[in-house]
Amino acid sequence: MTALSDQVSSPASAFADRHIGPRTPEASHMLEVLGYPSLDKLVDMAVPASIRLDRSLKLPGALSETEVLAELRRMAGRNRTAVQMIGQGYFDTVTPPVIRRNVLESPAWYTAYTPYQPEISQGRLEALLNFQTMVQDLTALDIANASLLDEASAVAEAVLLMRRSGKNKGRTVIDADALPQTVAVVRGRAEALGFEVEIADLSAGLPDGDINGVVLQQPGASGALRDHAEVIAAAKERGALVTVAADLLSLTLITAPGEQGADIAVGSAQRFGVPLFFGGPHAAYMAVRKGLERMLPGRLVGVSKDADGAPGYRLALQTREQHIRREKATSNICTAQALLAIVASMYGVYHGPEGLKAIARTTHQRAVELAAALEATDAAVVHEAFFDTLLVRVPGRADEYADRAEAAGYNLRRIDADHLGISCDETTTPEHVAAVAAVFGGSATSEAAQSTGERIPESLHRTSDFMTHPVFSLYRSETAMLRYLRRLSDRDLALDRTMIPLGSCTMKLNATVEMESISWPEFASIHPYAPEAQTEGWRELITDLEERLAEITGYDRVSLQPNAGSQGELAGLLAIRGYHRSRDEENRTVCLIPSSAHGTNAASAVLAGMKVVVVGTADNGNIDHDDLLAKIEQHAENLAAIMITYPSTHGVFEEDVRWVCEKVHGAGGQVYIDGANLNALVGLAQPGEFGGDVSHLNLHKTFCIPHGGGGPGVGPVAVAAHLAPFLPGDANRDIADDGGPDADGGTPVSGSMYGSAGVLPISWAYIALMGSEGLTSATAHALLGANYVAARLNDHFPVLYTGVQGLVAHECILDLRPLTAATGVTAEDVAKRLIDYGFHAPTLSFPVGGTLMVEPTESEDLAELDRFIDAMISIKAEIDQVAGGDFSLEESPLRQAPHTAQLLVGDEWTQAYSREQAAYPVRSLRHDKYFPPVRRVDGAHGDRNLICSCPPIEAFED
Amino acid sequence: MTALSDQVSSPASAFADRHIGPRTPEASHMLEVLGYPSLDKLVDMAVPASIRLDRSLKLPGALSETEVLAELRRMAGRNRTAVQMIGQGYFDTVTPPVIRRNVLESPAWYTAYTPYQPEISQGRLEALLNFQTMVQDLTALDIANASLLDEASAVAEAVLLMRRSGKNKGRTVIDADALPQTVAVVRGRAEALGFEVEIADLSAGLPDGDINGVVLQQPGASGALRDHAEVIAAAKERGALVTVAADLLSLTLITAPGEQGADIAVGSAQRFGVPLFFGGPHAAYMAVRKGLERMLPGRLVGVSKDADGAPGYRLALQTREQHIRREKATSNICTAQALLAIVASMYGVYHGPEGLKAIARTTHQRAVELAAALEATDAAVVHEAFFDTLLVRVPGRADEYADRAEAAGYNLRRIDADHLGISCDETTTPEHVAAVAAVFGGSATSEAAQSTGERIPESLHRTSDFMTHPVFSLYRSETAMLRYLRRLSDRDLALDRTMIPLGSCTMKLNATVEMESISWPEFASIHPYAPEAQTEGWRELITDLEERLAEITGYDRVSLQPNAGSQGELAGLLAIRGYHRSRDEENRTVCLIPSSAHGTNAASAVLAGMKVVVVGTADNGNIDHDDLLAKIEQHAENLAAIMITYPSTHGVFEEDVRWVCEKVHGAGGQVYIDGANLNALVGLAQPGEFGGDVSHLNLHKTFCIPHGGGGPGVGPVAVAAHLAPFLPGDANRDIADDGGPDADGGTPVSGSMYGSAGVLPISWAYIALMGSEGLTSATAHALLGANYVAARLNDHFPVLYTGVQGLVAHECILDLRPLTAATGVTAEDVAKRLIDYGFHAPTLSFPVGGTLMVEPTESEDLAELDRFIDAMISIKAEIDQVAGGDFSLEESPLRQAPHTAQLLVGDEWTQAYSREQAAYPVRSLRHDKYFPPVRRVDGAHGDRNLICSCPPIEAFED
Repeated sequence: MTALSDQVSSPASAFADRHIGPRTPEASHMLEVLGYPSLDKLVDMAVPASIRLDRSLKLPGALSETEVLAELRRMAGRNRTAVQMIGQGYFDTVTPPVIRRNVLESPAWYTAYTPYQPEISQGRLEALLNFQTMVQDLTALDIANASLLDEASAVAEAVLLMRRSGKNKGRTVIDADALPQTVAVVRGRAEALGFEVEIADLSAGLPDGDINGVVLQQPGASGALRDHAEVIAAAKERGALVTVAADLLSLTLITAPGEQGADIAVGSAQRFGVPLFFGGPHAAYMAVRKGLERMLPGRLVGVSKDADGAPGYRLALQTREQHIRREKATSNICTAQALLAIVASMYGVYHGPEGLKAIARTTHQRAVELAAALEATDAAVVHEAFFDTLLVRVPGRADEYADRAEAAGYNLRRIDADHLGISCDETTTPEHVAAVAAVFGGSATSEAAQSTGERIPESLHRTSDFMTHPVFSLYRSETAMLRYLRRLSDRDLALDRTMIPLGSCTMKLNATVEMESISWPEFASIHPYAPEAQTEGWRELITDLEERLAEITGYDRVSLQPNAGSQGELAGLLAIRGYHRSRDEENRTVCLIPSSAHGTNAASAVLAGMKVVVVGTADNGNIDHDDLLAKIEQHAENLAAIMITYPSTHGVFEEDVRWVCEKVHGAGGQVYIDGANLNALVGLAQPGEFGGDVSHLNLHKTFCIPHGGGGPGVGPVAVAAHLAPFLPGDANRDIADDGGPDADGGTPVSGSMYGSAGVLPISWAYIALMGSEGLTSATAHALLGANYVAARLNDHFPVLYTGVQGLVAHECILDLRPLTAATGVTAEDVAKRLIDYGFHAPTLSFPVGGTLMVEPTESEDLAELDRFIDAMISIKAEIDQVAGGDFSLEESPLRQAPHTAQLLVGDEWTQAYSREQAAYPVRSLRHDKYFPPVRRVDGAHGDRNLICSCPPIEAFED
Repeated sequence: MTALSDQVSSPASAFADRHIGPRTPEASHMLEVLGYPSLDKLVDMAVPASIRLDRSLKLPGALSETEVLAELRRMAGRNRTAVQMIGQGYFDTVTPPVIRRNVLESPAWYTAYTPYQPEISQGRLEALLNFQTMVQDLTALDIANASLLDEASAVAEAVLLMRRSGKNKGRTVIDADALPQTVAVVRGRAEALGFEVEIADLSAGLPDGDINGVVLQQPGASGALRDHAEVIAAAKERGALVTVAADLLSLTLITAPGEQGADIAVGSAQRFGVPLFFGGPHAAYMAVRKGLERMLPGRLVGVSKDADGAPGYRLALQTREQHIRREKATSNICTAQALLAIVASMYGVYHGPEGLKAIARTTHQRAVELAAALEATDAAVVHEAFFDTLLVRVPGRADEYADRAEAAGYNLRRIDADHLGISCDETTTPEHVAAVAAVFGGSATSEAAQSTGERIPESLHRTSDFMTHPVFSLYRSETAMLRYLRRLSDRDLALDRTMIPLGSCTMKLNATVEMESISWPEFASIHPYAPEAQTEGWRELITDLEERLAEITGYDRVSLQPNAGSQGELAGLLAIRGYHRSRDEENRTVCLIPSSAHGTNAASAVLAGMKVVVVGTADNGNIDHDDLLAKIEQHAENLAAIMITYPSTHGVFEEDVRWVCEKVHGAGGQVYIDGANLNALVGLAQPGEFGGDVSHLNLHKTFCIPHGGGGPGVGPVAVAAHLAPFLPGDANRDIADDGGPDADGGTPVSGSMYGSAGVLPISWAYIALMGSEGLTSATAHALLGANYVAARLNDHFPVLYTGVQGLVAHECILDLRPLTAATGVTAEDVAKRLIDYGFHAPTLSFPVGGTLMVEPTESEDLAELDRFIDAMISIKAEIDQVAGGDFSLEESPLRQAPHTAQLLVGDEWTQAYSREQAAYPVRSLRHDKYFPPVRRVDGAHGDRNLICSCPPIEAFED
């Protein structure tokens, strides 16, 4: 193997040299500080020899940026775009170019992290609050969250919400006209948790017996618009809760679920400007009536106030999050689809209520014209009332017509031999209507168009206003929109301005060349259920990516379906469950989880129907061997799996991981290795080789998909051969055959086979650009950066855990607890004070309370690492000032942090320290200073006074 | 015609509704303030009936954004990309994606204006200073400017510089191996000015006789590398100045012009990351030795200091500018190619000196390999020494080989029946070399590649360092580069943050959909001299745009060749000159120019060989009729033309423009109507109809090409039929035939037929999106906005000139002179104070000293107009405070403006007003406040102490 420190020689073509931050002399300097003669030596010491891979990864040679773009263009060229009239939850839409360029393609938006630090996230929090307000208004429900992963899994979440909230513990009834992929996903979840789901035609009324909750779809999968008022009333009367999966665009014209008494509305916001993306990523939504808000899964943006009493946005009710509630969590959802929710919200802001209504009316009008034209042919339009989708009956000739349409460039939905679905959308033109009518031998004349009335029943006409907040009318010109987007993004800190040293989150470079292809129409405009002949390029890319990830992880098969790490965990655990059941060991349901694990592990295990047993941590932070052996012995017969993270969430390469895996295997358990920290392993060790049976990866960590301010994520699941049959199946194909889960595949976790396919070119490009050498060098530099930071800061903030060589892996935990005990200054104070230094905080109080976990990644160069270290050392000096009595804790710049420009420039200055100490504690800040838009946001106040929609403009007056 | 105020009904598709700022109710409010019942009525009053167009423009119906993208994709699809080995001054290059997305595709960079206001332009000024430093270092000359329009016109500027600086007034000698298009452009200029140019083979030594200046090309057009040391020494000995047109990339390996004694170096920076763009826009450069810096044409960035003594960048030596020197100007260049110079500078920053050297070495290596392969065939490689280009002799078979190469996907340069040129560049791969060798029956084996040495003569090896400033080594990782780009752009104000109310500059929306296609490879990767069969899409778009512009202006023919308004003026005046000469009226050389005209008019007239006669201005700001008649009479026999601007530079529709045109025509003169203010006319009146024979337009004003921080611009020239034969010809085709100007076409003003073709899709898209109605509505809204601002501000700052109805056109002049007389507060103080309010200043002291000219354009909505008006009224109150003695002028926030964060947050505050008055004079500023990075920059200091390269980092320490 080449030495890891050898940087590539030709700067013109070597992408790895651009991805990795430190130049060769910088790396040498860092190694010198650490006392190692070479990067190879450091890596040899840091990574246990017992797991070290002794060969290069078998990957194609690294390509240049130009070559990668050419390859992507070649693959894109193997996809064929068509007029997409398949519908079934996915509709073509126009992404306004100003939003495409200034959100989807803007590093200020896409490189941002989840807004856990509200003070540097006010811009994206406002955008998400707009999303919530829009959804609340359209659904006429009280509180909406800030997006979920996709419609199918959102319905599953709604079902779970009904199950834990409903008084009645009976079965869940789903209307037969629900989207088939939704039914497949919900069934899978129910099967794992052991509750009953019944599919019933609710247009005939509710079935008898105990019912916990009801799921309706509006419009139905068949396109039918039905008045659900009666069935909802009946359900409520019988003590059941009601969820309506509703199309947001249709809600501009028809009565909202909340107005009909529904408790919950869910659905997709995709058609609000988010490309089809071959199935995702798209933002799903969920809204609930008052009383259920504290049960909502996912993220919720709320309005609170800052230290000066000004309004400040923040994530509300964070105590519901899995990493806090662990096995008591009610959902394992972590990631949202923030970037896509923001696109959808901006689409709403740009069009406003009248604009959305106009789009809905035009869409409906096209469907009406098409129906009129078809009704003059042999084809029968089945439903009298519809919004955008026609169910067409053509006995025995469905395939023939669909083929003919396909040849003409139109994709229709093939339902069965006799039925086709045809969906109109914002992009449908009169020419499209005429062409499709012609396929059926009809013609759409302008008179027909004139003469047709609407097909939305009077009783369903929406009469209530929505989106009346000024934000939905202020930014209608492109100029105004552009400036609004810029203004919001300027309030935030993202990777385009500063390192984001978040432990466990791997905020590395999201290179432009990796990002560019995702908005190409040949990738972005493909419907997830398009005919295979049109998706050859997509499938080539996906298969190739799966194979490369398998090689990198040392597993045999990879599924890219999970839309997030949490879904990957669930899919992986369901595969383990399926495996045990296939061997008639249904009793194996105990899942061992170390106490240091991320809470999502436990939440996912519960959702997979497992019982969580916690394994203790030894003093050195590693798994407690004795406790592990004891728990294995205690649960040997019922042992399903152990879930471990490697390197551990403590940022340490535990020496004995092989031993742990062997012990669990010895007791008949499977080993789940959480891939959250894979950035410390790529090219150096393979979890599939050193003992894992299954891992999920986070493409939005190790493989460069940007965090997008809290999503999209992709959480592929990688498995050994024996688990491959249990990888997630195709939710659409599943149901198409027999209405039940497909025996050939595992439980689907997303409505589309490849989940967030649309962003996979990013990870494909990263791997193709880096090659084996580049990836391995990146890993080595990630270790170097973390150890450099640990070594330089250890005297100021002790590093909590290290491996046997005194080294950390790719991140380090700085222990603030002694300082807190001595001075009262908390890790949170340090996190907030870092904002004044222009930094995003490290991970706060995870996995150990009162600490900060720092992961610099390989992408940060020496100058930025030193800037961070200098800031931390300067903060330490401020803590010393508190200790020394220069000012009290309450009056210190630490507790008062962060400082806004308004405060700093105010005529009155009553702080115990100077303005300059507040604003410019280190000299370099005097140029290009970032001023946060709010002071410290009061979390508790926000949770006590839950406000989750846009506040009135007056709230911002001084 | 539809009423102008009718906004389009479908918000989903009507682009005009997004381009135009005010919503219908806002427009109604504005009309109410003005006392007009409708927009139609206002327009009827504002625009003289005598010139009003009585029909709609004959343009295709407006397309939606989606439709425009589809049309652009269709046309792009008619271009064919190939491996471009034609060279001849244009080379393929890799634009680093991080630079493409974050400069070329970033509104923060491309919507910026020319940095005349240095305090809000420090970011782009730094980028341009990097460009100058890079060029100075590479050429080893003392001072470089901030770019010129293209290489051919840059050589012409160098020739003019030599003519006015050289002691020896003899002829100009150009080496026979100069680029043919350069020779054509220089000849055209010389012909107009009446000086002699001789083309001579200087490898045989200097010709006898008086020589003013010598132009050499390095490498030669033939690819030959020659040691120019002797000929330069000989020229200097004979009192001649020497210009070397040098390839920047080659200068990383070979001796620099400055090291060989050249006085001037010029050339193109295109291959530093700027796409081929079918010929432009590209940044040309010019560097000169000390002593010539005050003669440099174009813009020059210099380092000065701000009011606090900190370094501040600014445009230096602005008194050289044409609008100040008028007919005494030595060049008419106004616009630079700022955006492209920034791309090139960032390419240099990203690669650094070693990176550039590595690229040059690889490029050379490919050429060497190709030469080795060809030398084993019948083809002869003519020159022993070369850098990247081979001259290949294949007697009688040049076309045959070129055809064969073309069929294989390779474009070669066809020189004559016996010769081909083949150029390598950064993108040339060993596979390309092998394929081209194969065309000639040769083969490029890896041994051949190994065995070949280099073909740069030892005597030309560069030994000196270059680009040693830290800026060229700090930003080598993509992360570091991304943050540097963000940091610089954050220092500036551009249209993405604020209105830029610049009179005469029409800073309107540059819509994303208009911008997107310019980076598509099918448009961006086409060589200007590519075979016609490969450029069908380009030519369709260009022809269509020409025809639409002809219809809009009322002329018969349009040429899109001029790279800027100044070049359009020159081309238009040369057409007039050509016309008179064709009628044997060579004596007609007098050009009447009103005293209110933009100085460039006069400068252009001088460069076209005309004699400028100034016509006075009457008290109302209009042309003085008596003086006009007198001047016509006085010069009747020799009258060539009048140049007027309409509406006038005073922002007024003069009622008598037809009369003026008739009088000039009556005396045998031609009428040149400067199209700078066309934004007030589109759809309402046509200059070609109401009296013009020729106009130039500014696509970067009226037709939405962004200003790019000072370029690119496009200045098409539109003419009546009788002038059409004199439109600019093809500089490449011209020379290809007989070595002299083409009898069939006029004088070329750019090296490529379609000048800045690469940005023409922007204007094409704008017109296609707007259609006749949209364009006309935009004009009406531009008039509405200007009159609204004028009406609301008139009580505070009197509007200097209006038309007979008391209305202005699309801009208004606010007269500060009475206030200045009373209080000392100057227009400049107001301009600088506006920065504290978050605004870019209006046009300062043009066309009338001591005034501000405001042009809001149609794209600003009511909220932004009111924000500006409120700021101006607040500033007026501050002026009143000076008048009232609240503080002295010197101590006032006006004179002290702008205020940096450093000053405002400083522990000491000694100003006579409060911090809050300084920072937050109006309440809305408390959110999202822009802080300029420097205080007022001292212009005079900078001009006295001219520093035009990057200052050492220590300069920025406090």
